[in-house]
Amino acid sequence: MTPPRSNGTISLLTDFGQRDPFVGVMKAVILAACPDATLVDLTHEIEPQDVRAAAFWLERVVGFFAPGSVHLVVVDPGVGSARRALACAAGGQLLVGPDNGVLEPTLRKDPDALVVELTDHRLASIGRTFDGRDLFAPAAARLCAGAVPEELGATLQDWERLDLRRPKQRGASITGAVVVVDHFGNLISDIELDPEQQVARVTVQGQRVPWGRSYSDVALGQPVALLNSWGCVEVAVRQGSAAAYFAANSGTRIELLLGN
Amino acid sequence: MTPPRSNGTISLLTDFGQRDPFVGVMKAVILAACPDATLVDLTHEIEPQDVRAAAFWLERVVGFFAPGSVHLVVVDPGVGSARRALACAAGGQLLVGPDNGVLEPTLRKDPDALVVELTDHRLASIGRTFDGRDLFAPAAARLCAGAVPEELGATLQDWERLDLRRPKQRGASITGAVVVVDHFGNLISDIELDPEQQVARVTVQGQRVPWGRSYSDVALGQPVALLNSWGCVEVAVRQGSAAAYFAANSGTRIELLLGN
Amino acid sequence: MTPPRSNGTISLLTDFGQRDPFVGVMKAVILAACPDATLVDLTHEIEPQDVRAAAFWLERVVGFFAPGSVHLVVVDPGVGSARRALACAAGGQLLVGPDNGVLEPTLRKDPDALVVELTDHRLASIGRTFDGRDLFAPAAARLCAGAVPEELGATLQDWERLDLRRPKQRGASITGAVVVVDHFGNLISDIELDPEQQVARVTVQGQRVPWGRSYSDVALGQPVALLNSWGCVEVAVRQGSAAAYFAANSGTRIELLLGN
Repeated sequence: MTPPRSNGTISLLTDFGQRDPFVGVMKAVILAACPDATLVDLTHEIEPQDVRAAAFWLERVVGFFAPGSVHLVVVDPGVGSARRALACAAGGQLLVGPDNGVLEPTLRKDPDALVVELTDHRLASIGRTFDGRDLFAPAAARLCAGAVPEELGATLQDWERLDLRRPKQRGASITGAVVVVDHFGNLISDIELDPEQQVARVTVQGQRVPWGRSYSDVALGQPVALLNSWGCVEVAVRQGSAAAYFAANSGTRIELLLGN
Repeated sequence: MTPPRSNGTISLLTDFGQRDPFVGVMKAVILAACPDATLVDLTHEIEPQDVRAAAFWLERVVGFFAPGSVHLVVVDPGVGSARRALACAAGGQLLVGPDNGVLEPTLRKDPDALVVELTDHRLASIGRTFDGRDLFAPAAARLCAGAVPEELGATLQDWERLDLRRPKQRGASITGAVVVVDHFGNLISDIELDPEQQVARVTVQGQRVPWGRSYSDVALGQPVALLNSWGCVEVAVRQGSAAAYFAANSGTRIELLLGN
Repeated sequence: MTPPRSNGTISLLTDFGQRDPFVGVMKAVILAACPDATLVDLTHEIEPQDVRAAAFWLERVVGFFAPGSVHLVVVDPGVGSARRALACAAGGQLLVGPDNGVLEPTLRKDPDALVVELTDHRLASIGRTFDGRDLFAPAAARLCAGAVPEELGATLQDWERLDLRRPKQRGASITGAVVVVDHFGNLISDIELDPEQQVARVTVQGQRVPWGRSYSDVALGQPVALLNSWGCVEVAVRQGSAAAYFAANSGTRIELLLGN
């Protein structure tokens, strides 16, 4: 497969929050090197160092971007350590980030994924606390300006895998867990279903939740389980917070029984 | 009136928050269809499902955009239900959003407003929980790329009205309410005045508040009422929070007496 | 020195928060006047009226932008008062903001800084509560579109200085203070060091903190002091919050002893 060429768009996904100008200065570095880049914030509110949540979202959103988009992911508990830095091509997209598993579920989907270790191109600056600015942003800018990953470092044959707890299936019974509590309090689980699959029942914190197709299938304030727009089983409360209703959070068990 | 053609700018106004990549993925969908779009975030911190607050701000901000801007509004408690989806031209601007009243105060100002029901152009995807991504963003991208609303669906003659509680005037006395508590704790009311009108007094939570022209008309920590830059009566505390000072919030009554 | 011409990029640094569409409407005003501007948010989460924090970050980030970038700074406790409004050229960058000291540390670094008082070009609008929209954004747009500061007003020879408490040095002993607690809980101090300087010890809240070069020099949950990527002494806890660990906040004293 020919690696994709940049289309000029760079997405940013970090745990930097928005209180400090950290994301803004990464954008300054990118625009200084690649003035025509189009920048899209995915989120900067990943919980600090939550590599799994960042990996979960990255895997699900890249397919909505035009081929040749660059995705700059900086959730990097190992900044300043010997952990490697990566530039990759996979699934028609370009990826830049630390070698800590955050890119790995996205890479896993493409058997022809190309991964290189970023070996130079560090911004001349003091300190070792901000590789987002000094290492990853310059690499993303180079990809955006037309470089292929091989120009940024030597090809790797293996990289860190992410230890994802995957749902367990036994017959028609699937046990998964909440991976994301979203802004609305919806409980997004790691159970992925085919849209045609029938669901007999979903149980959360010992309570049965009716299966539906949209939030409006139940009355205001009532819970519903459904297949959400990310292909995951989700438990919601119509115009309310399922996290509050069920006293649930990331890691809460979700049990599902397939069938009519 | 000829409906305006897009100038390439799209504003986004939602209650999605910024914790999840929901806004980012809408932008991905827009840019995949319309790579040269210029995207402007109005806010994504509307309280979940607060259609009134979104409508209040939309009505006040559109006039600051160049004619032909597209405004994508997704505050959509009825997602997945039978509520209609709209694309509109009004006041020289283009609007996209659910038919739940959120666009209606803006439409009301233009007797020649054009409203169509979005009937197709849904993104091929699973789930019914994210019309922002699957229905509204593609429509905004089409308008941005040059389509007129009529190309997106059939013209409607009526649409949902927003049940706005408007201020009540009896002689020189006006009773309104706080509609927005802003980031600084300022109390923005629904009382709109002409800049030339004289105000004798303003009362909040039983306390008289002096009338002024700017925050700096009073000492630090003191309250002042004034006509703010949105044309609304606002109660503020200089370099402090009026919401805290008056223990006020959205819905708190504001009483105003016209005259010298 | 010839003042720089705009490269088309405008950064925004405010205390407006993100709950209200205040930043979005400033962008609308800019884009209406200068449709090709590239907009970069530095942060809008400066604590309300915290001129010092805004000045601290502005001084440190401007150098990462390409020459000729415009920086629009609106932390403006004196809005509506007689405080002046400024447009400046300094260090190859263009600056717009209130004359309250927020631009001054950045101006101080360039002996050839050019400062003018914004005297006209106010947007025709009601109210005196939003100079960000009505005065500063139009000025930034004019600079972005190619105007030089002198076209926006009369040159000033002096302007408000910022009363910065600077660290005190006595022999090898330096006493500074935390100026920013960042999103991760890191304590960023006002002590700037040369990367070659040796540090014997750092003390915070009576506790000695080991000196290191990166967060990963200590075990998880342990504190470390280092020279961060802004050139400042910082106290951190590896994958934790130093603010919580030391019960520290903005203003907490940091003591440092130079030497081996």
